[in-house]
Amino acid sequence: MITKQTLSYALAEKVIGWAVDKAEEMGVPQNIAVVDDAGHLVAFCRMDGAKFFSIEIAMTKAYAAAGLRASTHEVAPKTQPGMPGYGAQALNGGRFTTLGGGVPLSVDGRTVGAIGVSSGTVEQDTEVAQYAANTFQEYVN
Amino acid sequence: MITKQTLSYALAEKVIGWAVDKAEEMGVPQNIAVVDDAGHLVAFCRMDGAKFFSIEIAMTKAYAAAGLRASTHEVAPKTQPGMPGYGAQALNGGRFTTLGGGVPLSVDGRTVGAIGVSSGTVEQDTEVAQYAANTFQEYVN
Amino acid sequence: MITKQTLSYALAEKVIGWAVDKAEEMGVPQNIAVVDDAGHLVAFCRMDGAKFFSIEIAMTKAYAAAGLRASTHEVAPKTQPGMPGYGAQALNGGRFTTLGGGVPLSVDGRTVGAIGVSSGTVEQDTEVAQYAANTFQEYVN
Amino acid sequence: MITKQTLSYALAEKVIGWAVDKAEEMGVPQNIAVVDDAGHLVAFCRMDGAKFFSIEIAMTKAYAAAGLRASTHEVAPKTQPGMPGYGAQALNGGRFTTLGGGVPLSVDGRTVGAIGVSSGTVEQDTEVAQYAANTFQEYVN
Repeated sequence: MITKQTLSYALAEKVIGWAVDKAEEMGVPQNIAVVDDAGHLVAFCRMDGAKFFSIEIAMTKAYAAAGLRASTHEVAPKTQPGMPGYGAQALNGGRFTTLGGGVPLSVDGRTVGAIGVSSGTVEQDTEVAQYAANTFQEYVN
Repeated sequence: MITKQTLSYALAEKVIGWAVDKAEEMGVPQNIAVVDDAGHLVAFCRMDGAKFFSIEIAMTKAYAAAGLRASTHEVAPKTQPGMPGYGAQALNGGRFTTLGGGVPLSVDGRTVGAIGVSSGTVEQDTEVAQYAANTFQEYVN
Repeated sequence: MITKQTLSYALAEKVIGWAVDKAEEMGVPQNIAVVDDAGHLVAFCRMDGAKFFSIEIAMTKAYAAAGLRASTHEVAPKTQPGMPGYGAQALNGGRFTTLGGGVPLSVDGRTVGAIGVSSGTVEQDTEVAQYAANTFQEYVN
Repeated sequence: MITKQTLSYALAEKVIGWAVDKAEEMGVPQNIAVVDDAGHLVAFCRMDGAKFFSIEIAMTKAYAAAGLRASTHEVAPKTQPGMPGYGAQALNGGRFTTLGGGVPLSVDGRTVGAIGVSSGTVEQDTEVAQYAANTFQEYVN
């Protein structure tokens, strides 16, 4: 048998809260998704004014980051033309993205979930997701 | 131009909270989705122990209730064999459900969003959704 | 080679107009789709207040009526439990419906397109579609 | 609660009309889709001779422009190899396009809907959509 740790809803809510804090500070309303270690959604928040178009994108970023056990923007270079991962975005029925804004949530170096953020620029999305993941890291240690 | 009202995230969070209160009282962990008047997700909560399988079902119930402007369980009888709505569940790419647990959120008789609940029995899901929708009704009036 | 006749946009617009007239008379805002003989959309109208949920359903009704060369409600009995067409609604990726409101548009007994109507009750949808198809029939003869 | 404005069918019909005028002037039959602020279809026109293949593409362009709150051709450079948005086209189940011809419809700087045009070259599609969006802009101000 395998024993594993994953996010509680209480923790996921905290992650959402940290992301909202950062997004409000930046003045950019965001869609924020938090998934568990299996990539399944635990909590979601669409801040007032965030794009409906980015709801599913936020979820996909979180799903991909949990699945890759890596930040989506870090995987991007490996999928460029000529690279071994070229064309990966079409995999998993489109639930594979390398757009920045998906960041794993880790405990002792093990991925226990991920956050996905989408509605601003890719840079803004990444900043919010990274901030929430970093704060999570400090909180659980 | 058409002017319309829809849910803020603050209101959606309250709806989630009321649903969680009821689900906890019943001892049944639930997936709870809240969508706006256009069927787009605003907030989502998977309580600890709720089935991953029911995440998308909760969303579909909310989507259908917002779209039908009616509770999903009220539409169910109209889709039975021999009834005019027979076979409706295959429509909208499967985003049409008559499983109980989808209830509209209304202001002055107009649908401004909906809640979808899934992970318990259909009766339990309906009870939680109805409780949250009723409490919303009292809150906004 | 095959020579065939199908709807012009000008004719499709007329069909939409007749349906809108009927829907307004009934006081029921509707989604109205008109497709050509190949099932491809020619014109679409969402009247103010019609359900977003029924946009795709209107299109599916029109697609099915053009494809079946029969009104969707006439096919319904053949798909009931125990009948040879049972389960047909799952075919064509869900673009098969027997919900009333899809009616072929015919010239000299040949289907040249179809209308699909959705947002009211199945009976209301059927009444609007039938009215527009009948008016079309008179117009082209 | 959030109060927002979106397109009426009467306004959407006008937008279609402006697009048809431009397309006729150019001698290029087009598929023209108009969606509301939530990306849901309000009106659609396939001019005689427009490609059936481009029906869904016109809708997707409108959906993406409403969702991105930007013209699809303006987003295209950000999705090129090596850019942060690389691979975005695979998102939202393929309902994400950067092909020119999707342009937002705005009132006081807020997106209230979008137009999508497809059947000509990307340049022709963009020209028609832009013309209709500009005329809309003048009309509502």
